[in-house]
Amino acid sequence: MSPSTPRSAERPIPVLEIFGPTIQGEGMAIGRKTMFVRTAGCDYRCSWCDSKFTWDGSAKDEIRMLSAEEIVSELFKLGGDTFDHVTISGGNPLLLPQLSWLVQKLREHGIRVAVETQGSRWQDWLVRIDEVTLSPKPPSSGMDTDFDILDSIILRLTEAPGRRELCLKIVVFDEEDLTYARAVHQRYPSIPFILQTGNPQVAHDSDDHVASLLRRYEWLIDRLSALPDLKDARALPQLHTLVWGNKRGV
Amino acid sequence: MSPSTPRSAERPIPVLEIFGPTIQGEGMAIGRKTMFVRTAGCDYRCSWCDSKFTWDGSAKDEIRMLSAEEIVSELFKLGGDTFDHVTISGGNPLLLPQLSWLVQKLREHGIRVAVETQGSRWQDWLVRIDEVTLSPKPPSSGMDTDFDILDSIILRLTEAPGRRELCLKIVVFDEEDLTYARAVHQRYPSIPFILQTGNPQVAHDSDDHVASLLRRYEWLIDRLSALPDLKDARALPQLHTLVWGNKRGV
Repeated sequence: MSPSTPRSAERPIPVLEIFGPTIQGEGMAIGRKTMFVRTAGCDYRCSWCDSKFTWDGSAKDEIRMLSAEEIVSELFKLGGDTFDHVTISGGNPLLLPQLSWLVQKLREHGIRVAVETQGSRWQDWLVRIDEVTLSPKPPSSGMDTDFDILDSIILRLTEAPGRRELCLKIVVFDEEDLTYARAVHQRYPSIPFILQTGNPQVAHDSDDHVASLLRRYEWLIDRLSALPDLKDARALPQLHTLVWGNKRGV
Repeated sequence: MSPSTPRSAERPIPVLEIFGPTIQGEGMAIGRKTMFVRTAGCDYRCSWCDSKFTWDGSAKDEIRMLSAEEIVSELFKLGGDTFDHVTISGGNPLLLPQLSWLVQKLREHGIRVAVETQGSRWQDWLVRIDEVTLSPKPPSSGMDTDFDILDSIILRLTEAPGRRELCLKIVVFDEEDLTYARAVHQRYPSIPFILQTGNPQVAHDSDDHVASLLRRYEWLIDRLSALPDLKDARALPQLHTLVWGNKRGV
């Protein structure tokens, strides 16, 4: 939890994908036009991770070590004058203190910055993010949540000056995940809360993938509808998965 | 534009549907758990309206004239203790000054209230709505927008004291609709802006309805991505139509 120093900020950033403009397919900014920067490396190994290539070594030859300037330059080369929003995803971007400079440069360009993380690590640049999505992982992931760390991240973000949007997003595959999600919502009742349909077919697209995802989503809506302890909550699918399946770079 | 008087507020409300809990399938609260109250009657006749039964006479025998108390009672009978959000839709609810009392009673119960309207009429109760969606209709609807009225509604809402969320949502079937949408966004650049996929098959469900809607949504994402004048905008499908087709009451 050391503050990012100029030295760490100057370190290059391991990047696996830069793409867009497209839409954010999930979470609080669902449908919002954005560009994506996907960093490499993760402290988690979720069983159903849809971006395993960020940590399982399968795409290690695709990792590029880029400066903040190079990333910004590539974003503008791809998106020209069509965008004002960038989403930094991973992997877990919170492993990287050197993202501080990327965040600063994006903000200097008037760009709104969103970050997605499981909430297992802190970096000081997180308070300068406009839209923070914390998505602690439910039992089906095989991961354990360190609630002391999550508590401290949420406390720091809610106490930090400045305006930002913050939400909790939980992937739900089954009843056990839903029980976990309800406990998370109970722990942080004032944080906007989203249940997200799980995608069990991350490695390939079957013919009935969309139908299967929509059935899962319908189940999630039914369960949300029935629960008195989840009133102010959303249930959402991943729109990009409905439109493009598991294709990368969209 | 006369203020709603106690007398008008006591008038019964023409109701076609009360259902839920389910999710709001579209717009700024997409995915949010809510109950729906659908009022009868509309000043528009959109060619592709997905609720023609609210104005074409086909469901006139289903219209119930209910008091605000009766509506609230039915909402709690259906939803019990599972909800804290009600969406009033139509038809055009803004034809009904007597909704004033329903809004007041819902708020007394601590319920958040959302309203959807094309923005062609004003009622004073609109300033007490937590989430106002204005969806002026594009050329494909066959309707004309009176921008003087829309201007005055937006001005009143943005100047009224109190906190509320306001968004503009435009259904887009084709390039002509998109041109219209861009002009609306240019006219009200500070109002959160959503493009929504059009649904051309409102009367029946074909086997490839979902696939067809997703192709339309992909087209909309592609167009949004390319446009420099639509940076801070969302493109969204109707989730309920993907999950349930054109079924009513979900």
